[in-house]
Amino acid sequence: MAIQNDYAFHVKLSIPYAMAFQRISDALKTEGFGILTKVDMRATLREKLGKEFRDYSILGACNPQLAERALRLNLDAGLMLPCPIVVFEEDGHTSVSIANPVVVVERFGDETLRPIAVEAQQKLQRVLAALVENA
Amino acid sequence: MAIQNDYAFHVKLSIPYAMAFQRISDALKTEGFGILTKVDMRATLREKLGKEFRDYSILGACNPQLAERALRLNLDAGLMLPCPIVVFEEDGHTSVSIANPVVVVERFGDETLRPIAVEAQQKLQRVLAALVENA
Repeated sequence: MAIQNDYAFHVKLSIPYAMAFQRISDALKTEGFGILTKVDMRATLREKLGKEFRDYSILGACNPQLAERALRLNLDAGLMLPCPIVVFEEDGHTSVSIANPVVVVERFGDETLRPIAVEAQQKLQRVLAALVENA
Repeated sequence: MAIQNDYAFHVKLSIPYAMAFQRISDALKTEGFGILTKVDMRATLREKLGKEFRDYSILGACNPQLAERALRLNLDAGLMLPCPIVVFEEDGHTSVSIANPVVVVERFGDETLRPIAVEAQQKLQRVLAALVENA
């Protein structure tokens, strides 16, 4: 079940971490989002600090149409891009968290960006719903 | 001169866009930040939409020590990582914007993360100061 709070949308998938990425990528693609960046935080912490951490990645998702509209309105809108998606292992399942674009834009303080954030929010909620259906 | 507002720190460098990245990378490194991701937004918009845009990139900077401390306190802290740095061409100069970690954490709503955000903010302010000195 998808749980929703203010700052982020959360869902827990009943598939292993390594299998989640293709499903997330497919669900994002349906809504016009590509994955532009991927940080393997477990590998980063091991390499940089020599410390162990759970399987944990941060994806950067971007819908180019929405991004372009936002950037033409406000050049600093890139500070909210790409949209972070956190994916981590939890008890053999996979947790997925997506930042809520509407809340992020509210804090950013440019009201002209709100309609774009609402569109992004609706699309990302459909992404979450698709992930749950297939979980 | 570095200008500071609520959501982000801004600085305008008197060097061309293509020359700015090494300087930014060096200044970040001094404060323990690596650049984990780079999105060339101009190339992305051209490739995905066939549209032209100014030279524009979004870097993802991360200080592994601070990141690890944040993630051990709150697994969703990855939604604020890596720290976005926007770099774009403006009238032959280069604008650099860095999101203010303290403001981002305030909105995220976990007060236990504030000391880490304050440390990150201090480091990033020194990064900005170093960029200005050398601009």
